[in-house]
Amino acid sequence: SRPTAQITGMIQLDRYWTGEDSEFRQVYGVLPDGTAFRRVRIGVQGTYGPWEYRIIPDFAGAGRPSLLDVYIGLNDIPSLGHLRIGHFAEPFGLEQSSSTRGVNTLERSQLTEVYGRRRRVGLMVFNTWDQDQGTWAIGVFRSLNDIFGDDIGPREFRSALTGRLTRLLWYEEREQSLDLFHVGVSYSARVPQNREVQFQSRPEDRFGAAANNLPVLIDTGPIPASFYQLLVGEALWIRGPFSVQGEYLLVPVSTRTQGAVYFSAWYVQASVFLTGDHRQYRRDTAVLDAVIPRRDFLRRENGQWFVGPGAWELMVRLSHADLNDGGITGGRSTNLTFGLAWYLNPYMRIIANYIQTHPTSPQGPSAIGHIIGLRTALEF
Amino acid sequence: SRPTAQITGMIQLDRYWTGEDSEFRQVYGVLPDGTAFRRVRIGVQGTYGPWEYRIIPDFAGAGRPSLLDVYIGLNDIPSLGHLRIGHFAEPFGLEQSSSTRGVNTLERSQLTEVYGRRRRVGLMVFNTWDQDQGTWAIGVFRSLNDIFGDDIGPREFRSALTGRLTRLLWYEEREQSLDLFHVGVSYSARVPQNREVQFQSRPEDRFGAAANNLPVLIDTGPIPASFYQLLVGEALWIRGPFSVQGEYLLVPVSTRTQGAVYFSAWYVQASVFLTGDHRQYRRDTAVLDAVIPRRDFLRRENGQWFVGPGAWELMVRLSHADLNDGGITGGRSTNLTFGLAWYLNPYMRIIANYIQTHPTSPQGPSAIGHIIGLRTALEF
Amino acid sequence: SRPTAQITGMIQLDRYWTGEDSEFRQVYGVLPDGTAFRRVRIGVQGTYGPWEYRIIPDFAGAGRPSLLDVYIGLNDIPSLGHLRIGHFAEPFGLEQSSSTRGVNTLERSQLTEVYGRRRRVGLMVFNTWDQDQGTWAIGVFRSLNDIFGDDIGPREFRSALTGRLTRLLWYEEREQSLDLFHVGVSYSARVPQNREVQFQSRPEDRFGAAANNLPVLIDTGPIPASFYQLLVGEALWIRGPFSVQGEYLLVPVSTRTQGAVYFSAWYVQASVFLTGDHRQYRRDTAVLDAVIPRRDFLRRENGQWFVGPGAWELMVRLSHADLNDGGITGGRSTNLTFGLAWYLNPYMRIIANYIQTHPTSPQGPSAIGHIIGLRTALEF
Repeated sequence: SRPTAQITGMIQLDRYWTGEDSEFRQVYGVLPDGTAFRRVRIGVQGTYGPWEYRIIPDFAGAGRPSLLDVYIGLNDIPSLGHLRIGHFAEPFGLEQSSSTRGVNTLERSQLTEVYGRRRRVGLMVFNTWDQDQGTWAIGVFRSLNDIFGDDIGPREFRSALTGRLTRLLWYEEREQSLDLFHVGVSYSARVPQNREVQFQSRPEDRFGAAANNLPVLIDTGPIPASFYQLLVGEALWIRGPFSVQGEYLLVPVSTRTQGAVYFSAWYVQASVFLTGDHRQYRRDTAVLDAVIPRRDFLRRENGQWFVGPGAWELMVRLSHADLNDGGITGGRSTNLTFGLAWYLNPYMRIIANYIQTHPTSPQGPSAIGHIIGLRTALEF
Repeated sequence: SRPTAQITGMIQLDRYWTGEDSEFRQVYGVLPDGTAFRRVRIGVQGTYGPWEYRIIPDFAGAGRPSLLDVYIGLNDIPSLGHLRIGHFAEPFGLEQSSSTRGVNTLERSQLTEVYGRRRRVGLMVFNTWDQDQGTWAIGVFRSLNDIFGDDIGPREFRSALTGRLTRLLWYEEREQSLDLFHVGVSYSARVPQNREVQFQSRPEDRFGAAANNLPVLIDTGPIPASFYQLLVGEALWIRGPFSVQGEYLLVPVSTRTQGAVYFSAWYVQASVFLTGDHRQYRRDTAVLDAVIPRRDFLRRENGQWFVGPGAWELMVRLSHADLNDGGITGGRSTNLTFGLAWYLNPYMRIIANYIQTHPTSPQGPSAIGHIIGLRTALEF
Repeated sequence: SRPTAQITGMIQLDRYWTGEDSEFRQVYGVLPDGTAFRRVRIGVQGTYGPWEYRIIPDFAGAGRPSLLDVYIGLNDIPSLGHLRIGHFAEPFGLEQSSSTRGVNTLERSQLTEVYGRRRRVGLMVFNTWDQDQGTWAIGVFRSLNDIFGDDIGPREFRSALTGRLTRLLWYEEREQSLDLFHVGVSYSARVPQNREVQFQSRPEDRFGAAANNLPVLIDTGPIPASFYQLLVGEALWIRGPFSVQGEYLLVPVSTRTQGAVYFSAWYVQASVFLTGDHRQYRRDTAVLDAVIPRRDFLRRENGQWFVGPGAWELMVRLSHADLNDGGITGGRSTNLTFGLAWYLNPYMRIIANYIQTHPTSPQGPSAIGHIIGLRTALEF
């Protein structure tokens, strides 16, 4: 018999309103606003015996379509666990490891954007340990590839070794509730393409693949470097409807001109469900997953439709990135985000975010930008 | 359980032969000919309880792939009807509201092309009224977005309010026949992008996404305007194998330089089935739908294949567009189309069209172009 | 009921290592290396009564996505056989007619690349003859179209007539074995686009759609010609685990400047399965098909997993192309390939190839390039 083929789909439609003060306008220009699809996907995933695969193009992001998860996996390998080869997210940090369905803001924090969350072509092995109380993952990847998964060039070494180790300090599932504390560390050693590396970030929002997008606010420009490392520590506490999570990133770069420089970023965020629901956690990969409301907004019982609340989540996030060190002045940026998410059912949600961004550019004084975003999403 | 996922597909392969007189050649050049896919689609649609969704990329049109219907809908809302959010056709006119499967020519008339049938991002509510004798629909849309559904830019208002109201004067379904008279009006008030609006049309034919396509024959060029309106009246009469339909479009434009100018277009077309079949009409949305032949070309009965006629339809269409008014000389164009469609079964058809186009450009005398098109199509 | 819709998928991920001598480097530059997807596909195929269709975009090759098989077919036509209309491979030669699943090297030979294997828009009829001991196929095609299936231009004739005739000299299926000898001839008469034709080839390897790909080593440049022909003879011998196949191509070109010139190419290859498996042959279309291992690498029996060998195939290929004739000096190239393929199960395989390429350019002495390629593939 043939491999199974299950269709996955995703629609994320974003509406943005923006504003900024005159200092911001002087340095970064007027923020655009408008409407854009953030993600539009038709994908296929399936299994063949112990093998699994996933092929997911994205029709909204740059490349239209670009390639997202395109991989082959082997599960249930005795005393090893799981093997995966192809194009997928490196095992690094909590936000990067979680799919967009487990992220409760419009975009991941600037911490994740700084080091460039993107899928890479590579080979990874991963498993749980200590009776599923922890997970480990380690892989060898191309240090960079284009949005189609390709990396071709002159014959030089440019790979990355990346690993993640997590542990639950406690974990208790109760009836429709959850109590856990998760910690983790990740490390990545990387030889960059063309012996140059660059770090940058937008203000934690973007308009799909639009050309006149929200501007990059902090940017080191290309740094001559033949080696750099990424270090991240992560923590997540879920106690019933409450959750707190945070990550701290350190980026040591071995430049070819001025020795080692260090960049850093962090975020901390908290959320509470007004409806008594809770965030979902996958123990096999130690990631956040899609919220499953206790009572769907529209649910059918005994042949009749009832209106429920769905799940309502309030959240706040503070994030900071520092791309200044040595002679490099990429800038600093502090962002404050307030969010409200309405989960209509396990596959649909509406997210509203207000982001206040405070970039400190080397050229000018402190500036403030305001972004309000509204997303309507179907994700399955 | 997950949302359902039904695959839809479409192949439309076109072959064109062309000719023109010397006046035409002088003003518009030699018409190209050749072969091109007009539409190639793999789409997914499904439901989740009262929700529905559709994700359809097109692999043949400009953008390859561009995004067509990408929306989420909610059905059966008490005392309101249906709600739809995303990227889809505005409720305006009979041709625009009908899918390509309900159109019996190679292309919609220049009336529809003049005002720029394209999907827009928006929010629409719609329903039937008076015991399904009529329909209404109203929505708020972006006045323009790119072929990927995006519209990003400087912070200025550029939306459209569009609505359609239809009514059946009579409707009678008999055994394998249909007798109805449908009338409708649509209105759209629009604030254009970049305070400019442009109207143009090809000769009711196009080669997929080919670069050296059939030329635009009438074109106002960009008109400085901060507001314009679209008004269309429509009528459709189906009586067994006969059908007559027509629409009249009026476009008042509030220019910023010379006050109001008015453009207009109309078409009228008639068709008859030689095989006694009839055109299909959907009462829930008041649109034309795919023909279902009474006897398929190839049909299976008692384990054996029989050859039937399929459905054969002859049609004629006359259309006119006038883009001259005030100081604007976009040109006038009159097209005459003769068509023959062979519906092999509910999902396959072959269409042959002969179009004679008479553009009157401001620069020259009346000219004549000839286009013969042949389409082989699978649509499901 | 609607047409059926079966999903097909393909992932081919390639890793290349390269080297070359100084003569090669002088004339063709340094060969790039790296990682790239060669093919990433999500396709749909199905039937509706006696009709069939296929819609397959490719997300890895140039065009991203380009259109591969996009056609409608009719099967079981009395006394004729099968009809196909749309975009598909012309019936020409053994390598071109076989799908990538039936090819046991990373790429087809330079013979197939020289005449430009690509799908064309056309109409084909085909069937078996002499009690399925042979096949015939003949079709009319566009002589060239772009990777989206389109060919639009000035009104001039540019078609191709292509046919293939094959015969089995003997055919015997034994228990888990096969003994056959297949011969075939193909012919194509072609009127080129823009009255120019060009022949070229890479060294039997390529990096998906990457811009800085492996270089074209032999290339005639555009030749003014209003007519050219393609002739190929093919033979295939399978005897249990052994197989030998070869093709010889002759290309007479009627140039507009210097009369007729002749190019040629050939390859011969042999393979043996170390595991007693054999290559698969489809009698209905006389092509090579995917290998079905006798014992999968991982197989389930009585609820338990067992490790089997899969199928292991060793192969060697020698190929030559000669693009020098008359005043045209496109170059000559001889390639030697050693290959090892591991078929894990009917849908997964890993292929390793070593290619030694010896191009003889008009400008310089003989040069040598070395390419090692490794492919991980899922194909269903």
